[in-house]
Amino acid sequence: MSGTLGDLGEFGLIGALTERVPPGKHVPLGPGDDAAVVAAPDGRVVATTDLLVEGRHFRRDWSTAYDVGRKAAAQNLADVAAMGAQPTALLIGLVGPAELPVAWALELYDGLRDECAVVDAGVAGGDVVRGPAVMISVTALGDLQGRAPVTRAGARPGDLVAVAGWLGWSAAGLAILGHGHRNPRAFVEAHRRPEPPYDAGPAAARLGATAMLDVSDGLIADLGHLARASQVRVDLVGDLFDVPAQMRDVARAMGVDPLNWVLTGGEDHALVATFPSGTALSARWRVIGRVHPGDGVTVDGAEWAGTGGWDHFGG
Amino acid sequence: MSGTLGDLGEFGLIGALTERVPPGKHVPLGPGDDAAVVAAPDGRVVATTDLLVEGRHFRRDWSTAYDVGRKAAAQNLADVAAMGAQPTALLIGLVGPAELPVAWALELYDGLRDECAVVDAGVAGGDVVRGPAVMISVTALGDLQGRAPVTRAGARPGDLVAVAGWLGWSAAGLAILGHGHRNPRAFVEAHRRPEPPYDAGPAAARLGATAMLDVSDGLIADLGHLARASQVRVDLVGDLFDVPAQMRDVARAMGVDPLNWVLTGGEDHALVATFPSGTALSARWRVIGRVHPGDGVTVDGAEWAGTGGWDHFGG
Repeated sequence: MSGTLGDLGEFGLIGALTERVPPGKHVPLGPGDDAAVVAAPDGRVVATTDLLVEGRHFRRDWSTAYDVGRKAAAQNLADVAAMGAQPTALLIGLVGPAELPVAWALELYDGLRDECAVVDAGVAGGDVVRGPAVMISVTALGDLQGRAPVTRAGARPGDLVAVAGWLGWSAAGLAILGHGHRNPRAFVEAHRRPEPPYDAGPAAARLGATAMLDVSDGLIADLGHLARASQVRVDLVGDLFDVPAQMRDVARAMGVDPLNWVLTGGEDHALVATFPSGTALSARWRVIGRVHPGDGVTVDGAEWAGTGGWDHFGG
Repeated sequence: MSGTLGDLGEFGLIGALTERVPPGKHVPLGPGDDAAVVAAPDGRVVATTDLLVEGRHFRRDWSTAYDVGRKAAAQNLADVAAMGAQPTALLIGLVGPAELPVAWALELYDGLRDECAVVDAGVAGGDVVRGPAVMISVTALGDLQGRAPVTRAGARPGDLVAVAGWLGWSAAGLAILGHGHRNPRAFVEAHRRPEPPYDAGPAAARLGATAMLDVSDGLIADLGHLARASQVRVDLVGDLFDVPAQMRDVARAMGVDPLNWVLTGGEDHALVATFPSGTALSARWRVIGRVHPGDGVTVDGAEWAGTGGWDHFGG
């Protein structure tokens, strides 16, 4: 479909986008009414919302619309999984300038649809309006399937700290793009399209995880939230981090420490959880540290000297 | 609290905003984790999302932050009510430039909080990021309390068409502001802060409403959606609209037909519903027409010659 958002008009665009994204099996009433109806069999619904702003969270010259869509869905679906819940549906808001190509919006929705399909979720509804820049709001809903939510506040001294998914890959990819390169592709792809380990979330809840979160701002920064909420200290063990050889090569070429990407890089949406000592973890969980009395996050007992996490208003 | 979003930083602002808005009785787990948990006792959750963009949906020189907050909450809570559901919680996204005063954001959240309080809902979570303009995303959730959702698709020939709430007041207020005036205040206030008849939504469902929606884009435009979804014609009866004398006076001074505000003005968030003929409606519902076989919306049997509804990308 050619043309711009201005040509097609709001209702035309909503119609075209809605056709693109099935509501899915958890949505008895999808787009087109005042509101959607989403199944919430648990009797509670997990809900989270995020905003992505062009130039801040994505660049149209670095990522395709399709990848932005996958990423926008991924970061919200990962938040639902990090509560131990099964994602059910997204609601999407799109702000765009009148001159935004309709094709860009359609590809964005293709990406949203395909990322939803990974977890069997759908798009229940949304809104489209004109504005000065491309901005996407995503709300994700999920079902706890009868389990208690796994919050950030339950970690206890003695617990294991374990991670599922990737760490530092997106940050390495961003550094590569920032240097004007496109390779190694694996990192660039990881930056463009994270692959959160969604099903590890409900699995962690079933394994008895005491606390969990998704790594969106960087492992140390996010574990800082967990340590604060749980009133504990989290100590990471440097030797337990397996930095891939390819990542070490890229870091060496740039003169940086690759462990900094692993410990402070955001946007991979790994899940990090604490488990009672002795929990039999499946192979997808890599133990990376332990919970102690105290506060804050340490690496081998000491404060990490690298840069911290990402503050969206700070420097 | 003085300073700008840039001074305070993302986490500082989220903390200050979260203190401002209680999650309320329907939210067992509020802001501060990866996601919130909201009660959904019905086993389904009603969900809707809207975007408000500065310069398009509000102007900071015409509306206070507080009023923008009330309006942003109102339009979403009205969408939930229009399904016949009880609103439970909002999720809020705020995009703002670094130079946006923190006080503006805090007042916005005061408005969100106070509008939520009208329906006993709370703010379950949100996101704050920097961007080129002020944009607000609002997702509202609600509970059907065991009833079927009242969609747009159930109107049948012979049904009564009835409205609860105000029509044309916001449009009159906008026209007054557009002429550089601030009076009569009642209309200006209605534009700044709509008062949707929230509890009429669940009440309509209990009365057996066959279809319902909230009037956000204008009565004729929105009834057009209902007529299309239900495959019927809606005929409005001009004599049944009681245009207040004060509105007639303002319209006369501007040389316009006040019925055009009533029939095509958006943003009052009245609820319009269809009921089986003979339904004993309470005094808050004013019968304004009847459902017929056919398609489209007519006024006294003819197409309305005034302007249509509001298309966010169109002219």
